[in-house]
Amino acid sequence: MASRTQSTFSPPVMEARRWIEGVEFPANLPLINVSQAAPIDPPPENLRQAMADALLDSTTHLYGPVLGLPALREALAKNWSRHYETTVSADQIAITAGCNQAFAAVISSIADQGDEVILPTPWYFNHKMWLDLSGVTAVPLDTGADLLPTPDAAEALITDRTKAIAIVSPNNPAGVEYPADLLREFFALCHRRGIKLIVDETYRDFDSRTGAPHDLLDQDGADETLIQLYSFSKAYRLTGHRVGAIVTSPSLLREVEKFQDTVAICAPQLGQKAALWGLENLDQWLAGERAEILARRAAIEANMPKLTAKGWRLLGLGAYFAYVEHPFADSSADLAVKLVKEASVLALPGTMFRPSEDASGTREFRFAFANINADGIAVLFDRLAQLDWPLAGPSRTA
Amino acid sequence: MASRTQSTFSPPVMEARRWIEGVEFPANLPLINVSQAAPIDPPPENLRQAMADALLDSTTHLYGPVLGLPALREALAKNWSRHYETTVSADQIAITAGCNQAFAAVISSIADQGDEVILPTPWYFNHKMWLDLSGVTAVPLDTGADLLPTPDAAEALITDRTKAIAIVSPNNPAGVEYPADLLREFFALCHRRGIKLIVDETYRDFDSRTGAPHDLLDQDGADETLIQLYSFSKAYRLTGHRVGAIVTSPSLLREVEKFQDTVAICAPQLGQKAALWGLENLDQWLAGERAEILARRAAIEANMPKLTAKGWRLLGLGAYFAYVEHPFADSSADLAVKLVKEASVLALPGTMFRPSEDASGTREFRFAFANINADGIAVLFDRLAQLDWPLAGPSRTA
Repeated sequence: MASRTQSTFSPPVMEARRWIEGVEFPANLPLINVSQAAPIDPPPENLRQAMADALLDSTTHLYGPVLGLPALREALAKNWSRHYETTVSADQIAITAGCNQAFAAVISSIADQGDEVILPTPWYFNHKMWLDLSGVTAVPLDTGADLLPTPDAAEALITDRTKAIAIVSPNNPAGVEYPADLLREFFALCHRRGIKLIVDETYRDFDSRTGAPHDLLDQDGADETLIQLYSFSKAYRLTGHRVGAIVTSPSLLREVEKFQDTVAICAPQLGQKAALWGLENLDQWLAGERAEILARRAAIEANMPKLTAKGWRLLGLGAYFAYVEHPFADSSADLAVKLVKEASVLALPGTMFRPSEDASGTREFRFAFANINADGIAVLFDRLAQLDWPLAGPSRTA
Repeated sequence: MASRTQSTFSPPVMEARRWIEGVEFPANLPLINVSQAAPIDPPPENLRQAMADALLDSTTHLYGPVLGLPALREALAKNWSRHYETTVSADQIAITAGCNQAFAAVISSIADQGDEVILPTPWYFNHKMWLDLSGVTAVPLDTGADLLPTPDAAEALITDRTKAIAIVSPNNPAGVEYPADLLREFFALCHRRGIKLIVDETYRDFDSRTGAPHDLLDQDGADETLIQLYSFSKAYRLTGHRVGAIVTSPSLLREVEKFQDTVAICAPQLGQKAALWGLENLDQWLAGERAEILARRAAIEANMPKLTAKGWRLLGLGAYFAYVEHPFADSSADLAVKLVKEASVLALPGTMFRPSEDASGTREFRFAFANINADGIAVLFDRLAQLDWPLAGPSRTA
């Protein structure tokens, strides 16, 4: 390989952006963009005001500590303690410039060239990309009809080079919420085998369940085994400001600090102050955001019969995502481009979320529904139901 | 090695911060912090107002294109064309979250595990750290009494694993401005040997020379050989907002895009808009900043006799930095800590800028003078002149 980057693929989201570049969508068929898992509305007015105020503070414009503003680490520790009904301290928290960077920093802190990390499939492509970029092998872990993996299947993949199992819950792209019992079993497996359990909880705030989503922080050995990742981007609509977090042991964060210093110096100060303000003031507002996402999720379920009648299947649903199986003969990789042209719909094909040798992705799409309300969902599903492309035979998994 | 991060050292700037943590400095001997190469004043008032205005624009809060805002890439291309008296286009520009990230993205785009990159010593420690983190060997290139390397010495170090020579001009830590002729010779060497020439021009705006600092962009083969790095942090005092840039061929930027997507998604939008506003409005202001830095540089020269009388030597001076040789018996690594306690001065020892096997660092300090004015420089040098620590013999290089 001539370089690290040549070991991986081009960013799927940028590829999808290129499909719509320069395209003029008909007035009666405007683009429905369900490709990216990001809010497109700005943060609430009071948070924007708090950000404007923060610009008056000189420190906002200066470098800050590599692992984040102490006040933000403290506030997230409090939030984390409440959310998971346990006790987390500020020295267990590092602030990063987004959750992708959190994953990158963690992998560099626990794995070396030639090591392996197990990822349930379908996976989040940026996780796969960073493992490629690091010379770490992403080992795909098949999931069942419920898109959940089993600890037994995972254990069969563990070798002496395995450093971690990395789970996303609620899942991107599949939407599924990992049951607390299943996460506990995965934790026990990782702890027993001396590897890390990484849980990316970017979509934590949109979980349909109430109360703590798991009790991993209370397990014996959590300090040496558990790594949680978080993003402020979705909760407070701060995608453009780049703020995420890592929650793990202080000793591992000393390794993370080396990576962060070299790649970021520090997360942007304004984003950090915005996240802090959000933690202190937006609980109620965020509860409303969650209710709205859950309403959209319900709208997906309500509209799904239009598609099942045409041979589609809903494979997973939760957080920002519906993960579906389409009934057509062609691969989703080709159909995604056709979908832009014929239905003015931009969605990512399942092929982007699976290893190239795994053909199931050719039958799958991810719909990220954070940016379409219930009416938009109805329109989207009407458009999809009208597609009269050549059908495949029955699905392999049905 | 258990992980990538374990192959490198802890961030020097954070280590230095810890030396002053909790220290109460006497009222008659306040801390003089010359450790970090960063302005501590906020951006000018009109830029702060432009940033507040940008918060009213929804797009500021959203993800942007991985390689940066088109308007900023366009504006920097224009600036670059003017500064280097040539023609650079927007598709040769990528925006990163700071210049450290620019270096990281570039190395990942051109080198793989086991490759080598040549760095003149003293080197910028974050370059060394990223090479360690990437499994790329940093090959130290000795410099002469003027702290400049020779192309012959560099060529002798090139192997079939060498991917680049990475130069910082004006230099961090040594302050020296690489002559245009020398850079042209390095370019010719790199071009002939099929490797990249990386020129980190973070301190470009504080070069004491007028006109284009070099004509590398006009050399045949610049497209395949030259990579320039830049930072908006120093020019417009935007350190906390994390904006830097890469200027190179569009084909290499397609590789850079993979790294950026995975590690950053995009540089913070507000920082990008601030940089854009700066490029459009702050030429005059920046000229004043440069004049002030040059005045401080002159103050260093004017005060230097106080130190040469005590056995110190000025090794390099330029941009934000004075690089000096001290006359004492103990290593600068120990003296740096003593300097905090006995003189209330925080400066980084030369040992942080050289490989551990290179003893010259034990005799060196870097003073980053961007945050002390001429009066402060006089006070600093008075304090240093009063140190009565045990002396070493004559320096090895004198």
